[in-house]
Amino acid sequence: MALSRRIQEILSWYQSDTPGVRANLVRLLNTGALRGTGKMVILPVDQGFEHGPARSFAVNAAGYDPRYHFGLALKSGCNAYAAPLGFLEAGAADYAGQLPLILKLNNSDSLGGPAEPCSAITGSVDEALRLGCAAIGYTIYPGSSGRNTMYADLRALTEEAKRKGLVVVVWSYPRGGKLSKEGETAIDVCAYAAHIACQLGAHIVKVKPPTAHVEQDAARKVYDKQQIAIGTLADRVRHVVQSSFGGRRIVIFSGGEAKGTDAVLEEIRQIAHGGGFGSIMGRNAFQRPEGEAIALLRDAMAIYKAAR
Amino acid sequence: MALSRRIQEILSWYQSDTPGVRANLVRLLNTGALRGTGKMVILPVDQGFEHGPARSFAVNAAGYDPRYHFGLALKSGCNAYAAPLGFLEAGAADYAGQLPLILKLNNSDSLGGPAEPCSAITGSVDEALRLGCAAIGYTIYPGSSGRNTMYADLRALTEEAKRKGLVVVVWSYPRGGKLSKEGETAIDVCAYAAHIACQLGAHIVKVKPPTAHVEQDAARKVYDKQQIAIGTLADRVRHVVQSSFGGRRIVIFSGGEAKGTDAVLEEIRQIAHGGGFGSIMGRNAFQRPEGEAIALLRDAMAIYKAAR
Amino acid sequence: MALSRRIQEILSWYQSDTPGVRANLVRLLNTGALRGTGKMVILPVDQGFEHGPARSFAVNAAGYDPRYHFGLALKSGCNAYAAPLGFLEAGAADYAGQLPLILKLNNSDSLGGPAEPCSAITGSVDEALRLGCAAIGYTIYPGSSGRNTMYADLRALTEEAKRKGLVVVVWSYPRGGKLSKEGETAIDVCAYAAHIACQLGAHIVKVKPPTAHVEQDAARKVYDKQQIAIGTLADRVRHVVQSSFGGRRIVIFSGGEAKGTDAVLEEIRQIAHGGGFGSIMGRNAFQRPEGEAIALLRDAMAIYKAAR
Amino acid sequence: MALSRRIQEILSWYQSDTPGVRANLVRLLNTGALRGTGKMVILPVDQGFEHGPARSFAVNAAGYDPRYHFGLALKSGCNAYAAPLGFLEAGAADYAGQLPLILKLNNSDSLGGPAEPCSAITGSVDEALRLGCAAIGYTIYPGSSGRNTMYADLRALTEEAKRKGLVVVVWSYPRGGKLSKEGETAIDVCAYAAHIACQLGAHIVKVKPPTAHVEQDAARKVYDKQQIAIGTLADRVRHVVQSSFGGRRIVIFSGGEAKGTDAVLEEIRQIAHGGGFGSIMGRNAFQRPEGEAIALLRDAMAIYKAAR
Amino acid sequence: MALSRRIQEILSWYQSDTPGVRANLVRLLNTGALRGTGKMVILPVDQGFEHGPARSFAVNAAGYDPRYHFGLALKSGCNAYAAPLGFLEAGAADYAGQLPLILKLNNSDSLGGPAEPCSAITGSVDEALRLGCAAIGYTIYPGSSGRNTMYADLRALTEEAKRKGLVVVVWSYPRGGKLSKEGETAIDVCAYAAHIACQLGAHIVKVKPPTAHVEQDAARKVYDKQQIAIGTLADRVRHVVQSSFGGRRIVIFSGGEAKGTDAVLEEIRQIAHGGGFGSIMGRNAFQRPEGEAIALLRDAMAIYKAAR
Repeated sequence: MALSRRIQEILSWYQSDTPGVRANLVRLLNTGALRGTGKMVILPVDQGFEHGPARSFAVNAAGYDPRYHFGLALKSGCNAYAAPLGFLEAGAADYAGQLPLILKLNNSDSLGGPAEPCSAITGSVDEALRLGCAAIGYTIYPGSSGRNTMYADLRALTEEAKRKGLVVVVWSYPRGGKLSKEGETAIDVCAYAAHIACQLGAHIVKVKPPTAHVEQDAARKVYDKQQIAIGTLADRVRHVVQSSFGGRRIVIFSGGEAKGTDAVLEEIRQIAHGGGFGSIMGRNAFQRPEGEAIALLRDAMAIYKAAR
Repeated sequence: MALSRRIQEILSWYQSDTPGVRANLVRLLNTGALRGTGKMVILPVDQGFEHGPARSFAVNAAGYDPRYHFGLALKSGCNAYAAPLGFLEAGAADYAGQLPLILKLNNSDSLGGPAEPCSAITGSVDEALRLGCAAIGYTIYPGSSGRNTMYADLRALTEEAKRKGLVVVVWSYPRGGKLSKEGETAIDVCAYAAHIACQLGAHIVKVKPPTAHVEQDAARKVYDKQQIAIGTLADRVRHVVQSSFGGRRIVIFSGGEAKGTDAVLEEIRQIAHGGGFGSIMGRNAFQRPEGEAIALLRDAMAIYKAAR
Repeated sequence: MALSRRIQEILSWYQSDTPGVRANLVRLLNTGALRGTGKMVILPVDQGFEHGPARSFAVNAAGYDPRYHFGLALKSGCNAYAAPLGFLEAGAADYAGQLPLILKLNNSDSLGGPAEPCSAITGSVDEALRLGCAAIGYTIYPGSSGRNTMYADLRALTEEAKRKGLVVVVWSYPRGGKLSKEGETAIDVCAYAAHIACQLGAHIVKVKPPTAHVEQDAARKVYDKQQIAIGTLADRVRHVVQSSFGGRRIVIFSGGEAKGTDAVLEEIRQIAHGGGFGSIMGRNAFQRPEGEAIALLRDAMAIYKAAR
Repeated sequence: MALSRRIQEILSWYQSDTPGVRANLVRLLNTGALRGTGKMVILPVDQGFEHGPARSFAVNAAGYDPRYHFGLALKSGCNAYAAPLGFLEAGAADYAGQLPLILKLNNSDSLGGPAEPCSAITGSVDEALRLGCAAIGYTIYPGSSGRNTMYADLRALTEEAKRKGLVVVVWSYPRGGKLSKEGETAIDVCAYAAHIACQLGAHIVKVKPPTAHVEQDAARKVYDKQQIAIGTLADRVRHVVQSSFGGRRIVIFSGGEAKGTDAVLEEIRQIAHGGGFGSIMGRNAFQRPEGEAIALLRDAMAIYKAAR
Repeated sequence: MALSRRIQEILSWYQSDTPGVRANLVRLLNTGALRGTGKMVILPVDQGFEHGPARSFAVNAAGYDPRYHFGLALKSGCNAYAAPLGFLEAGAADYAGQLPLILKLNNSDSLGGPAEPCSAITGSVDEALRLGCAAIGYTIYPGSSGRNTMYADLRALTEEAKRKGLVVVVWSYPRGGKLSKEGETAIDVCAYAAHIACQLGAHIVKVKPPTAHVEQDAARKVYDKQQIAIGTLADRVRHVVQSSFGGRRIVIFSGGEAKGTDAVLEEIRQIAHGGGFGSIMGRNAFQRPEGEAIALLRDAMAIYKAAR
């Protein structure tokens, strides 16, 4: 299958990478309903680890079974499915070769813990290879006092993953330290977080949709003086994409808390309009009944397809 | 010996594992009075380390001798015997090949120590291989501020154990941090702890029998709204099993403090009724005279056998 | 030389160990005046490190010279000589092959330091091999908040030592944390400390002679209820030996501070009467003039010989 | 191409290094408008990581694209281009072999973090080799309580880089601990920081232009008594160069905050007059429009060329 | 060249060491004006790192150039020259094979830092080999709360150095923790510090000349009771030498702060009279004009030569 022009263009941004990494990047981009468009919708299911099983799966009890999510991602035409070690292990053999997998290498639970946010390392590059994954995923918390450790751990994992042919996806969530709660999704902070992930060598960056709030005084002066447009979500997405190496890195956005279908789709329209590369949609997908979830995911994909 | 249908079904959940791991899983499931049923009763003796020798063995002084426990597990028809390095080392040669052994790789003493609970690492995967074990055991304390270190240590041990063909058994005991004493056995916390162990790659999870208390506010809303049944121990066991990858991981329950025979057996009936895979019974076994202990263990096994 | 029945019996407790380890165990048991009896008297000289040179050697200035202690152990018929790296290095070539050596792998000084007791690692298994030692020695402080690190370090050293054919001797001295000063030698704490050392894989355990004090409330209930005899030192030694895997591990006792000859020998009589395997006698030996020290060590050995 | 006398002289200072290191040193010195003069102007672009993307690139939006900076360095005739992993990765293939690259191995962000300054490690020597770099760069903060860790990390990276043929460039920025804000650029502190970098094995040292302030009392006595000239920037540069192994190490100076063209060039005249080996000019270059930036960089190079 | 009797005697103390280590010990003892005498005078220049360049070299500006110190050591007939990585690297090629070098593997600066003294590791055994050194040097601070880390680091470096044929020189400077300022040079503390260095495996120990102050109560009782002579510096040096394995380790003394020629030489007379093996003289040498420094070093050597 010949690669589309857009895929060829995207690959041109990753010329420092090996054929192995680029082959897996193609696997991610050429799978599902959005194959060949350069857009992506990914299903992530780490909420069981992050919030506990009942809060994650009771509303749609089919989701307790790890195989359910492989099936949901496949039926809805997602580009990939991302989860922690246990969840992938419990279905990777059944679904081997049927869709790209992303092994989340670190995770947090919400049963207590250190004052400053820092995830536990729960997987490895070799485990990702053992399970046939196309990529590793890793979460950093810029702003946290533990970030130097997270950056250093990610650095080592990234070097190993690239050497072994895996794509690196970084969840960049500012949190902790001097940041206000509102500041965690501020446009200056979000753009900065995306830039840091790119500088750390991420192939794909995942951030939250930013608000129009500007957190840092030193940044506000620049946003005002240079009249950087941040009025609409589309504006802000455009700024985040520009902050990610001038648009030469894939940046996707999460949907955040479960919400109504209209709100989800409107957000995606804005992301698509602003040049975002796609969405990673977890709770809004797997907490709906399967039919509804598939419909929503396909609607989201249709928006991205139309936005090319 | 052909495998029973139930064993074949259980093995189907572990298809991501090597033949080496699955062979040891079969050894654990096809040993003793419950062989072939998919149920398990395991004898664990780490109380000498955890509470001291006199508190553990004075009441039945035969237990000071490490060989006693090998014999007890064998005579009563347990699926396996679990203990720390020293206790296994002191009998592994005498009982080589006679019953599956589980090397507990971390342990705590009660002579003082850090404010937050965290066990010391006291064994290794290679030591488990040297002693002819079928599995490693490891305790995590979800909720403790030291949990990131425990998860990361377990992750590395799990990767090594799976590569070397050993089964991974995780004791998941919420403790420390923001958790109340009552919260340590709360149903939401217990189900969450079992889920975390599964996500970390455990083949077999061991938790305490949960109470009807719900610890976390965010969880309570869901338990209420989704009307999750937690009224009886059987209900709660069922919920914990469901939280463990929809019942596709082996979950067994501890008996806690020494108590009367009736209370022990009633608890086991509830566990069996709720779909629990078995029990791990320490003090309630080895602190009774040998004859009584064997009788109690056999009664427990009979309940599980009948519950299939 | 054929092994005595007692040595054969002792070796039967260590069947999980390699021929290399068992050969060194035989070297330790078949050296000196007590050879073949299964009893041991060891000369340890780490006081220079622990208390400083003048406090250790000024009273008998011959002891400043490291060779003196090799000679003293040899002339008096000790089973082995134990010391830190520097002291062994300074005589190991002169005395190569003449008596079993034990390299102490960790040590403390008394010039200040951390609030919680924790020894520095000052040697390695490979250094022990280089110097021709039969065993390594390591001190743990159960009760200290640093104990998890000590246990983990000992675990790794023990695994390496056993793989390389060395015997592991553990000094188990409860100290720090919640323990009272009196509690450091309490019978419950001392028996517990011996048990922990055994669980950590020690071949030979060294503890202090316990007092009749019971430190822990939870333990006191058991000592009372089970009427564990702790009235005489012989009773307490018997309990400590039983707590060390039902007597299937070698447990020896230190003499503590320098004291009069009668007091030393009376203590040894009690230890021997209670089934203790021997003594490790430092300051009471090397701080006496050589002739007196040799006489005292021989008297101690005579007591153990008679006690078989 | 035969080496100029000056380059041969400079190479004579690095005779302890391998031919591989010296070859890369020649690559750095024999590139661009200043080739053969022994002077250097380097373009560093780590401000995106350090201050965020908008504060760094909004004023000249072409700079969001990582390729822009490769082009700017090449067109203006810089000796080398220095940046973090991500920025280099995004252009290294396009510009392979066209100009020497320096991989910055550690970086800080300004989103919060530890009280004491300490950069995160964000690259490795092997990554520098993978990207075809001539050198690694590393920032130390003398004065910070985290400096021992930084020195030790740099030491290991330096040993590896030298073994693998890479030049080591050290940014030495006193910061933290007991230092006053004014003290960070004090002449005594700056000369000390340059000396430390040399002692740690740096081939090229980068410091800030020092002020006439003397921070340390013990140093002030010596500056007064020995009448060390520190009145002009040229004097101070001369003292810093002398403090760097009597002028036998390459010392270059940063320009600090963005400022007017005249101020930049006057500072460079002083640096050149004082015997400084060159400048590293970031924000003053890439935040100007490309034409202006090239003109400014060329003017700076002309000053250094004239100063030979 | 046949070895002198004294050198043969000294070598007899190091029989546990390899021919490689002993060859380097001979190189150190058989170089310079004191060759063959068993006495040593070493030139150390780490003051640039410890106190900054101006405080170290402004008074005799020739010393900014690293080659100066190689020349000074060579011309004055020193046994060896000791310095940190950068200083050695900058002259090792020019002076290869002309005099024994000692690479200082750890260093402190005085720009601030941790409350408790602890040096940064700034070199490695392999770097010492690369530069053609005969020995490594390492500073410990007994008494500091960081001493366990220092001892453990030294232990590993010592094991590696001995395996690779290098001599180990330990600077033992009590500092920090409970020690008073006066206590840092107290006779009991100084003798203890020398003993610790020996126990850690040092071949050569370097301490400060001790005062008659006794710091520790437990030690004072012994010094009084045993009537240990500490009245003169010669007495105290004799006690320190005895505390260093009964005189079977090489112990040398530093001169401390720069002072008058008479004071320096008088101190050396006392050290020689007390049986000290030599001096390590830094600031008192390189801060004098070269001619004066050579004269002073030669006078010092003459005293040691006469004292045999």
